[in-house]
Amino acid sequence: MRRNRAPIGARPGTLAIPGDSPPPRIHAFGYSAESWHESDLDSPAEIAAIRSESQTVWVEVQGLGSESVLREIAAEFQLHPLALEAATNIPQRARHEVNERYLLSIARVPARDDDGNLSMPQVCMILGDGWLLTFQDRYLGLFDGVRERIREGLGPIRTAGPSYLFVALLDAMADHYFPVAEDLAALLEDLEDSVNVDPQPAALREVHAARRDLVALRRVGQPQVDAHRALSLRPEPFIEGEAIVYLRSAEQHVAQAMGIIESAREHASSLVELYLSNVSHKTNEVMKVLTLMASIFIPLTFVAGIYGMNFEWMPELKQPWGYPAALSVMAAVAAAMTWWFRARGWVGTYKPRDGDR
Amino acid sequence: MRRNRAPIGARPGTLAIPGDSPPPRIHAFGYSAESWHESDLDSPAEIAAIRSESQTVWVEVQGLGSESVLREIAAEFQLHPLALEAATNIPQRARHEVNERYLLSIARVPARDDDGNLSMPQVCMILGDGWLLTFQDRYLGLFDGVRERIREGLGPIRTAGPSYLFVALLDAMADHYFPVAEDLAALLEDLEDSVNVDPQPAALREVHAARRDLVALRRVGQPQVDAHRALSLRPEPFIEGEAIVYLRSAEQHVAQAMGIIESAREHASSLVELYLSNVSHKTNEVMKVLTLMASIFIPLTFVAGIYGMNFEWMPELKQPWGYPAALSVMAAVAAAMTWWFRARGWVGTYKPRDGDR
Amino acid sequence: MRRNRAPIGARPGTLAIPGDSPPPRIHAFGYSAESWHESDLDSPAEIAAIRSESQTVWVEVQGLGSESVLREIAAEFQLHPLALEAATNIPQRARHEVNERYLLSIARVPARDDDGNLSMPQVCMILGDGWLLTFQDRYLGLFDGVRERIREGLGPIRTAGPSYLFVALLDAMADHYFPVAEDLAALLEDLEDSVNVDPQPAALREVHAARRDLVALRRVGQPQVDAHRALSLRPEPFIEGEAIVYLRSAEQHVAQAMGIIESAREHASSLVELYLSNVSHKTNEVMKVLTLMASIFIPLTFVAGIYGMNFEWMPELKQPWGYPAALSVMAAVAAAMTWWFRARGWVGTYKPRDGDR
Amino acid sequence: MRRNRAPIGARPGTLAIPGDSPPPRIHAFGYSAESWHESDLDSPAEIAAIRSESQTVWVEVQGLGSESVLREIAAEFQLHPLALEAATNIPQRARHEVNERYLLSIARVPARDDDGNLSMPQVCMILGDGWLLTFQDRYLGLFDGVRERIREGLGPIRTAGPSYLFVALLDAMADHYFPVAEDLAALLEDLEDSVNVDPQPAALREVHAARRDLVALRRVGQPQVDAHRALSLRPEPFIEGEAIVYLRSAEQHVAQAMGIIESAREHASSLVELYLSNVSHKTNEVMKVLTLMASIFIPLTFVAGIYGMNFEWMPELKQPWGYPAALSVMAAVAAAMTWWFRARGWVGTYKPRDGDR
Amino acid sequence: MRRNRAPIGARPGTLAIPGDSPPPRIHAFGYSAESWHESDLDSPAEIAAIRSESQTVWVEVQGLGSESVLREIAAEFQLHPLALEAATNIPQRARHEVNERYLLSIARVPARDDDGNLSMPQVCMILGDGWLLTFQDRYLGLFDGVRERIREGLGPIRTAGPSYLFVALLDAMADHYFPVAEDLAALLEDLEDSVNVDPQPAALREVHAARRDLVALRRVGQPQVDAHRALSLRPEPFIEGEAIVYLRSAEQHVAQAMGIIESAREHASSLVELYLSNVSHKTNEVMKVLTLMASIFIPLTFVAGIYGMNFEWMPELKQPWGYPAALSVMAAVAAAMTWWFRARGWVGTYKPRDGDR
Repeated sequence: MRRNRAPIGARPGTLAIPGDSPPPRIHAFGYSAESWHESDLDSPAEIAAIRSESQTVWVEVQGLGSESVLREIAAEFQLHPLALEAATNIPQRARHEVNERYLLSIARVPARDDDGNLSMPQVCMILGDGWLLTFQDRYLGLFDGVRERIREGLGPIRTAGPSYLFVALLDAMADHYFPVAEDLAALLEDLEDSVNVDPQPAALREVHAARRDLVALRRVGQPQVDAHRALSLRPEPFIEGEAIVYLRSAEQHVAQAMGIIESAREHASSLVELYLSNVSHKTNEVMKVLTLMASIFIPLTFVAGIYGMNFEWMPELKQPWGYPAALSVMAAVAAAMTWWFRARGWVGTYKPRDGDR
Repeated sequence: MRRNRAPIGARPGTLAIPGDSPPPRIHAFGYSAESWHESDLDSPAEIAAIRSESQTVWVEVQGLGSESVLREIAAEFQLHPLALEAATNIPQRARHEVNERYLLSIARVPARDDDGNLSMPQVCMILGDGWLLTFQDRYLGLFDGVRERIREGLGPIRTAGPSYLFVALLDAMADHYFPVAEDLAALLEDLEDSVNVDPQPAALREVHAARRDLVALRRVGQPQVDAHRALSLRPEPFIEGEAIVYLRSAEQHVAQAMGIIESAREHASSLVELYLSNVSHKTNEVMKVLTLMASIFIPLTFVAGIYGMNFEWMPELKQPWGYPAALSVMAAVAAAMTWWFRARGWVGTYKPRDGDR
Repeated sequence: MRRNRAPIGARPGTLAIPGDSPPPRIHAFGYSAESWHESDLDSPAEIAAIRSESQTVWVEVQGLGSESVLREIAAEFQLHPLALEAATNIPQRARHEVNERYLLSIARVPARDDDGNLSMPQVCMILGDGWLLTFQDRYLGLFDGVRERIREGLGPIRTAGPSYLFVALLDAMADHYFPVAEDLAALLEDLEDSVNVDPQPAALREVHAARRDLVALRRVGQPQVDAHRALSLRPEPFIEGEAIVYLRSAEQHVAQAMGIIESAREHASSLVELYLSNVSHKTNEVMKVLTLMASIFIPLTFVAGIYGMNFEWMPELKQPWGYPAALSVMAAVAAAMTWWFRARGWVGTYKPRDGDR
Repeated sequence: MRRNRAPIGARPGTLAIPGDSPPPRIHAFGYSAESWHESDLDSPAEIAAIRSESQTVWVEVQGLGSESVLREIAAEFQLHPLALEAATNIPQRARHEVNERYLLSIARVPARDDDGNLSMPQVCMILGDGWLLTFQDRYLGLFDGVRERIREGLGPIRTAGPSYLFVALLDAMADHYFPVAEDLAALLEDLEDSVNVDPQPAALREVHAARRDLVALRRVGQPQVDAHRALSLRPEPFIEGEAIVYLRSAEQHVAQAMGIIESAREHASSLVELYLSNVSHKTNEVMKVLTLMASIFIPLTFVAGIYGMNFEWMPELKQPWGYPAALSVMAAVAAAMTWWFRARGWVGTYKPRDGDR
Repeated sequence: MRRNRAPIGARPGTLAIPGDSPPPRIHAFGYSAESWHESDLDSPAEIAAIRSESQTVWVEVQGLGSESVLREIAAEFQLHPLALEAATNIPQRARHEVNERYLLSIARVPARDDDGNLSMPQVCMILGDGWLLTFQDRYLGLFDGVRERIREGLGPIRTAGPSYLFVALLDAMADHYFPVAEDLAALLEDLEDSVNVDPQPAALREVHAARRDLVALRRVGQPQVDAHRALSLRPEPFIEGEAIVYLRSAEQHVAQAMGIIESAREHASSLVELYLSNVSHKTNEVMKVLTLMASIFIPLTFVAGIYGMNFEWMPELKQPWGYPAALSVMAAVAAAMTWWFRARGWVGTYKPRDGDR
């Protein structure tokens, strides 16, 4: 959980590359309406050639594990030192930042790792004039669908410039919120039954874990909605033409996922309340059984105890009617107690109910 | 619950038509102040003729189950690819979106399905110059009242152009919030009694279910209020003349329904609190009964136990006053305990009270 | 509780007059600085004459039970169809709406009906050029004080035109919030004692009922504050001269009442918490008594039970010291248990405390 | 608690002087950079003379118990009728109101009365051209420090005109929040121990009382912060020169006190939660003791009961090994139960812990 | 906890130096792109010389324990009296204040003192034309890293003027939030286990203490984010050139720390809920054990009690089948009770579960 951080008081712009980030893999796409070529680069030095011969260039960097490689890339695109810090500082709040030469955008995407834990890989995108640069701290296939669309030339992707590509990537990231959100919502639906039928701590712990994930998702996704909205309301020159319309659509997609998450969160809170209420109710029921048993038998046992005493002068003991009389008294006491409890509505409630154990 | 979604990374504008949406039924109305005609169309190709001969055209599409038909309709009205995505992507947040050629509006309407579950069918309306296009994912009679008003020519509906029709449909949708909201409010009133008299988990589960519905209604309705307000404050050219006044009235109607929903939600929260308090109180009462019985009889039984011991040398056992003395001691102990509990106010509270079982 | 509503899909402007609203009583005031006259009108047709001969006219309509009468009045003042819908549609959120011919204002006033239930009669006021029209759905004496002031000509009321009258009525309505709010605050003060001394469900139910009333009051009053503020910040031409100053004063009055209500609401929430805490504490105390009694006597009874066994070979039973020894063991056990409980602080807490039953 | 209020429907501007407000004492200060004189006035008529001969005049009115005196003062300064209503209407929300002739300011100050109850005396200040008028409903020494500073001529107070004096009074009032807020914060710190060590209802009641005071303080102080901020952002002509800087400083002081109050409120909420948790935990511990005792001894007593039966044919009773065998069985049962409870971790937890009684 | 405060009604600008603040140590840096020199000053009088000979001057004052020294420094830089009050008034809300001669900035930094308690030392920075003045109330090494960077001339620090230095210090302070926030988050992760496995009050108290720290951190840090954002949106002339970009980066850093804090706070709230739920569940389990034992053995003991009675005429006692029959009845009762409990699902749940004691 500990992030790698620059030492306290370090110069702004000092890189704090996450310790577990693998060495960078650089993949470059150069394309225009008519043609495209892509290649895995061995060194950032190859980027310049691709930029010179293509109309639009997309350089995708996966893995941040080499400061020198990153600095070479930054030099090629003349990035401000703080831009590289933003690309490697993980985690950050989603946002779009603009200066006169490029638009820098941070976004995070929900993913389940192999153990089922929720992780939030971060993507940093830098959109300049004719080029788009993306950084991810891990090897992930987030953008495989978009790569395929470039290769096939479907839709306006090859003709609409880098800002359309930028928005297409934002939209691809938005899509990743849905399966995670829907799985959590479905899990909570399942847990509702188990909370109602047999409220066990394990179920509650699952509800809490789901809620933590939902809170994390909202914390990561909501700034994305806000950032997209702000950008679409006062678009920057880097966002050309129709890309705005598609940006608004990407915003709608994340907002939709946030809606699912928000509903699931309220459901989770409801489940916690239901759990507590059900446990309270069960304790009450258990207490009633105990009280009933004790209240009926304790007086009876006392009566038996009296006639178990060994006093010499206990005249009832000598009478033939003594034993039947004692049994009758006991029966009367038991009947009276039972009637009293029934009158208070305690006994009648013990039908073996469904979902009440 | 799973929505149909385009695959991750799909091109923006890819349609994800809900799997259970039936094939489209197309109903077209053409009308002017003097006349009207309506027909069920077999194919979207017939729309062009109707548009050419009528002043105002309303094309109502119910069911989204054919992508090709939808695309034909979109082509007829020259819709942007994302407009069709918006029409088929379910569920979405209510909003009004404007471009230079039309106003696209998403709204959702509460309805109870046959099992009494709350569903929220979505309506997409696209208002252009002289025409209105509506998409619903199911066959519903939401707009039957408005159809009738066109036929009868009541009020300004035939003279006031498509923007009045658009607002009339919004208003008709607003009306659907009331019965659902009022039923839920009434249900909670009924549950209050049962929570107070006999707090059972079943009642609490009903409160929670009602609250989930209320939360869902608010989540769907509030954006509608906001969207209507925003549109009425800076009306778009598509909203002509008086339609603004009626739009404001439609906003008031949804807002009014939201008021009922908000009150019901606070009531539901109160009921959960009441439930927990009542269960706690009952547990306390049950405990008092048990403690009373146990505290009075356990010492008595102990005294009886002493004189039930079989020691040879127990001089009291030989005395004729032994038995009466033992009984007297027991009576004194019982009286003392009872006095003590009465002094603490435990016994006095056992009047068979109304609503306390 | 069910409101009367126009059928779903009805034309905007359709009236839905509350079913229990009595037939309209029309009372007209015509006045100028020098003179005034008032009369109960038999028919709306008489209004025209009064308007023609008076500088300022106030037509007060109490009861909405005749659509035709209302429509006649609307015709006389040339109201938009939606104005009449607003006047009869109950309940609505407080607001001020302006068009080029009049200012329409909705407000609600708290009142206790004969059973002590909180009701919120609604007043609709329409302020035009030289006239003020008010609609109430019941016969209430809300404005008796203002009528008297017109008759006596106290203050600027007869000289300052209809907008001053309009504000004076708003202020008179604000006054009605105070007694209701203060009664609820006083009730909660009373309940605090009973919650602390003897937490019974009945007290909690009263707290909840008070809270529902407080929530309803706030929901009705807060929009009034907001509407008054908005109107006083950007006054409309209908509000002449000094009326703005008085409008701001009316806003302060409602805001003051909202302050009382807000404090009372937080108090009510505190009481619920106190109640739950007190019940929990009492349950704990009851449990301690039970545990104490049981833990002391159960071992003793067990010892007695051993020597009540009938084995032939039980040598202790034969010894003269057997009985005293058994009693000594019991005394020692009881002393040890008592010491243990005292060491844990359980016994010392049983002073008969004030307010602890 | 009941405020004095004008009757419902009374003319705006009707005074509702609090019934317990003593007769007015009028204290006037006239000063310039070089000189000052002060006097207790017998009648408002003397004010005119002081105004004519002094550069700056501060008239301090303590006690509102004479409507005629107040009206004379209002006439001298030509106040609007509503200004006097604002000065005597108690309590009101803090605010600054401006018209073309003066700035009217309402503020409230926390104070403890002799019984330790929190009261919130209200001060109304009216700042005009060359004069400042202050109204308090009681005789309080709130401004003694400022009076002294005028007499001694320390700092810019005598040279900087009435707006500096106005701000100095605001700042003096801000100072009164600190001791009250800090006492409450300290009380809560003390209560935390008692809640943790021995959660008794009395402690919880104190927490609740402190929270009510904190809520009242915030409700009174926060509008003050807001009003000061608004005034310092768009200063009115009545606030001259440097007074703005000092106003901002006064705002910081109230805001600082609000910070203390806000922290204390969150602490109070935490204490309530801690209390409930501790009571629950204690109940659980008590239950464990009871269950342990009962579960161990009840089976033993049953075994003893069996051999206390008087059947003629009970062969075990005749055997010399019967008694030892029975005792052994009992010991085995007790050992088994103890082992079982220990395995579940119940027994091990009974170390006499600090703070656990 | 008590702050030092000026007496009530004191002149604005009166210093209230914290009583425990040590005497001032003055450290001055003078530097330009080419050179730097630093010295510990014995008296503020030496500052003037350094200012005259250096392009940029940074005067760092640690310890506020001498009013005369502070006033000398203020005189040297011609500070407004309120500036010195702001520098010594502790604690205050973070903010940036501007006048025509300098920018005054208040910030607070989290630190752990030797006892592990969270303290929040305050730093006041005043940025003027060519100079930066910083005040701290204690001797802390907050800015050691920045001092080193000046000495080594790394990055733009020596060339970019005092506003870059100002932002570098803000950034260094932001860095101090991370270790404190991450420690608290890690502590809560650890506590989650202990709350789940064995909910003891000690763990809950730790959760509450952590939450108090988190609330304090947010209260101190959030205004910092807001102040930085406001300053970077409408930069003042004192912030030159690129410093804005670095200010935005410092804002991101504090905001990132706030994100960690916010997540930890929600986690803490979850833990409290989990604790309460687990205690409730455990109480329920304990009750079940008790009820089970009591319900099975109490009836058996009663049966034994009956045949322990000493009536002369009890025919069963004489029969040889009496004893076996009685034992059989007991066995049957025990079996029936066990079956009943098993049917209700109480018995089956007693597997020795992990984490359930």
